[in-house]
Amino acid sequence: MITISDIEASAKRAQGVVRRTPLLSSPFLDEIAGREVYLKAEVLQHTGSFKFRGGWSALTALTDDQRARGVIAYSSGNHAQGVARAAQILGVPATILMPDNAPALKIANTRAMGAEVVLYDRAGGEDRGAIGAALSEERGLTLVKPYDDPNVMAGQGTCGLEIAEQAAEAGMTEGTVLTCCGGGGLTSGIATALEAKAPGLTVRPVEPEGFDDAARSLVAGEILSNEGPEVGLCDAVLTPAPGALTFPLMQRLCGPGIVVTDAQVKAAMRLAAIRLKLVVEPGGAVALAAALFHGDALAPGPVTATLSGGNVDPALFAQILAEPAAG
Amino acid sequence: MITISDIEASAKRAQGVVRRTPLLSSPFLDEIAGREVYLKAEVLQHTGSFKFRGGWSALTALTDDQRARGVIAYSSGNHAQGVARAAQILGVPATILMPDNAPALKIANTRAMGAEVVLYDRAGGEDRGAIGAALSEERGLTLVKPYDDPNVMAGQGTCGLEIAEQAAEAGMTEGTVLTCCGGGGLTSGIATALEAKAPGLTVRPVEPEGFDDAARSLVAGEILSNEGPEVGLCDAVLTPAPGALTFPLMQRLCGPGIVVTDAQVKAAMRLAAIRLKLVVEPGGAVALAAALFHGDALAPGPVTATLSGGNVDPALFAQILAEPAAG
Repeated sequence: MITISDIEASAKRAQGVVRRTPLLSSPFLDEIAGREVYLKAEVLQHTGSFKFRGGWSALTALTDDQRARGVIAYSSGNHAQGVARAAQILGVPATILMPDNAPALKIANTRAMGAEVVLYDRAGGEDRGAIGAALSEERGLTLVKPYDDPNVMAGQGTCGLEIAEQAAEAGMTEGTVLTCCGGGGLTSGIATALEAKAPGLTVRPVEPEGFDDAARSLVAGEILSNEGPEVGLCDAVLTPAPGALTFPLMQRLCGPGIVVTDAQVKAAMRLAAIRLKLVVEPGGAVALAAALFHGDALAPGPVTATLSGGNVDPALFAQILAEPAAG
Repeated sequence: MITISDIEASAKRAQGVVRRTPLLSSPFLDEIAGREVYLKAEVLQHTGSFKFRGGWSALTALTDDQRARGVIAYSSGNHAQGVARAAQILGVPATILMPDNAPALKIANTRAMGAEVVLYDRAGGEDRGAIGAALSEERGLTLVKPYDDPNVMAGQGTCGLEIAEQAAEAGMTEGTVLTCCGGGGLTSGIATALEAKAPGLTVRPVEPEGFDDAARSLVAGEILSNEGPEVGLCDAVLTPAPGALTFPLMQRLCGPGIVVTDAQVKAAMRLAAIRLKLVVEPGGAVALAAALFHGDALAPGPVTATLSGGNVDPALFAQILAEPAAG
């Protein structure tokens, strides 16, 4: 569990390194949604996703001895890059465990940032947790988990501090904040920041159809998992279940989850490109899809959506962009 | 001619409306260029290009009587949108004269912003100046020229004020600033701002091959024109010649022009999408192309390039993104 103090301490360590990403808008998107829509452009964060916040937060919290031995992380790609880049800047050796079906761009970027990449068979069901634990014991590495880690959660929470400030600048005291939700690191971090700094803003996690573990868990009041392998369009948010640390915060602070279709995600990606000039990956567009196409499920008032990441393979992005516009 | 006072007055009128766009970077781009590269992300400005700065600047300088009668502008698209959106916000009637071969997205956007769009035959050589003058006389409209207008130039200069501030924040006191150059409004505005606020930064205008009127004019010491019709990949910067007001400033303040190929522009667009998560239109990518592929022509030290606009038709963007990477 984390508190606002953890997030504020993380924000202090982030000063001068982590980017304060802009809160953008477009009258064209407002018209589609029938309300004011603001976008937190985390695609502009270092490494192209909010995950750099958590990586930097975790690595700057290590002891000198831990830094010298190095870190290990497992990730479908964005956490990998966030940790790898933070490690590169800080001179910490990084080993990254990635699924062999992760987008090629994410694997290549992680390697280019100086990390050693170890691939595992995600579709075949290899247990990345076990592989990671074995590697970290063997090499004396500190494991940086993708979401269920207090320092990582505090780092993602710095995005929430910025949303609170930017909402105040925009005169927004009430409204909904939609987050792209995988394991709940960003969602719980933002919710914790907003509880303290902008209590009139309610966080609602958004997930793709078929991977709605957070939405179902919130309804059930206990952690439920997705069935089947973690393969789908929205690779960044296909985690099997909310985390043991993130879920209690989500349960206490968030409204009900929202589920979007792949077609809505693609339409949101097209609109982000045309109206905001931003490249957003599928998993990073689920919150915008909810803002644009699920207004009925939202309380009245303005909505802020995270654009969590932009690391989409160019060929896939081009293909989605060229499809006939559905929204 | 304008001075720093005009730009500072324009910046005051812009407060709370015009966006302070971020200065971005990527280690991947630094590696290609072999130096530090910073990008001024004007694609994130309202209407997707820096032209909103000039439009807002010009319209807020009008008398109440002029506002009530309305404005007219002629533009291949970005100035059209900048003026149309400023007019929409201020409640000023706007008539926009656009070439019939302008990108469909730019024409549609301008109409959606409430402006009356009048199309003319650019490829066939119809004189937009004459058409605009006739319309403005007939309706009592104030003509807002795309670059050769002191208030427009001062508005574009606010981009230079921000570059000066952001360069100082990044510890940059010397270096090169590459601008996407059409008629020279942005180039002369930025150069005037930097002369006063960051004199160690030298502006170099960048143009596409075949439309290098500014580069040739700077060499000749007099205004020279491009031959033939204004048709090409980089539609935003295909103006026939530097302006009577912009050229003397460019002559006094800018280094030599740089010319880039269409292939380099496309490579820059792909890299902006992959490394910066930004959608940049061809004309808005010429300065980045120079930063990445014309390092030999630049003085040592960091380079800042404007990403001037992002209003590219999605189908063309998808096609360029899907082409085999050349750089």
